[in-house]
Amino acid sequence: ARPRVGYFFTGKTGNELLADKLKKITVAEYQSIPIVIKENDSVYDAISTMFLEDVGTLFVIDEAALLTGVVSRKDLLRASLGNQDLASLPVNIIMTRMPNVAICKKDDYLLDAASKLIEKQIDGLPVVDQTPEGLQVVGRITKSNMTKALVELAGNRRR
Amino acid sequence: ARPRVGYFFTGKTGNELLADKLKKITVAEYQSIPIVIKENDSVYDAISTMFLEDVGTLFVIDEAALLTGVVSRKDLLRASLGNQDLASLPVNIIMTRMPNVAICKKDDYLLDAASKLIEKQIDGLPVVDQTPEGLQVVGRITKSNMTKALVELAGNRRR
Repeated sequence: ARPRVGYFFTGKTGNELLADKLKKITVAEYQSIPIVIKENDSVYDAISTMFLEDVGTLFVIDEAALLTGVVSRKDLLRASLGNQDLASLPVNIIMTRMPNVAICKKDDYLLDAASKLIEKQIDGLPVVDQTPEGLQVVGRITKSNMTKALVELAGNRRR
Repeated sequence: ARPRVGYFFTGKTGNELLADKLKKITVAEYQSIPIVIKENDSVYDAISTMFLEDVGTLFVIDEAALLTGVVSRKDLLRASLGNQDLASLPVNIIMTRMPNVAICKKDDYLLDAASKLIEKQIDGLPVVDQTPEGLQVVGRITKSNMTKALVELAGNRRR
């Protein structure tokens, strides 16, 4: 028999193999820890948290720890330009509110989350768990995670 | 002769093919148009430009149109918290200044640019052209471009 090493039959091109591998990656494999603040926290607190945690997106939760909104660096920059007292302005006034918040789940495909980021022109999505009470925030997936995924696909694992 | 359709010899696994394809992509294939401001423009002007152009990173140039610095959304948010008059504060006071600015060239590999974004924890890099006079800004490459690259690698071309 002729040696088969190095030969394989797939009916697919290299590009298709690439696509197949990529398409199977889930959000769970690349998600980061979510950074949350409470609805009644001030915009000033939100900005402080954003710098302290060095993230671009904060998730806003209510007293029951359920997702009610999202604030981005852009939202905070816009608010800081207004001549308001940031320490007495609650973050829920300036946040993007449910149901207008784009979300994803940990078992979603990474590519679907990436497409949402591009379409909605946002930097990050909350990874949520649907419970009878509402949405619990279990992670965050951002353009930084997508950039890491790209680098790791090339074989340079950095995690 | 036996049909060769669907067979190919590479001596490589699917993952290696993936890595090879990825490694050959250059910055030029994914770069966006750069948004620049002048050194003496105010921080207020910079924030306005950032919202108008909807970008996360602005490149700062001198009178000869050469790169002298970079300002991020984070830099502008930090500045806006200080109690200064943003309209009279020149952007070159708060920018990250050359030679501390991470840069790339259009023929660089996209993966090297992606690694720089991760290592330096920044959202975008200027794509520059080295001239005898200094660095001309010819493009911008960001985590958004990396996210698009990831989606397009899966075969969902959106450009």
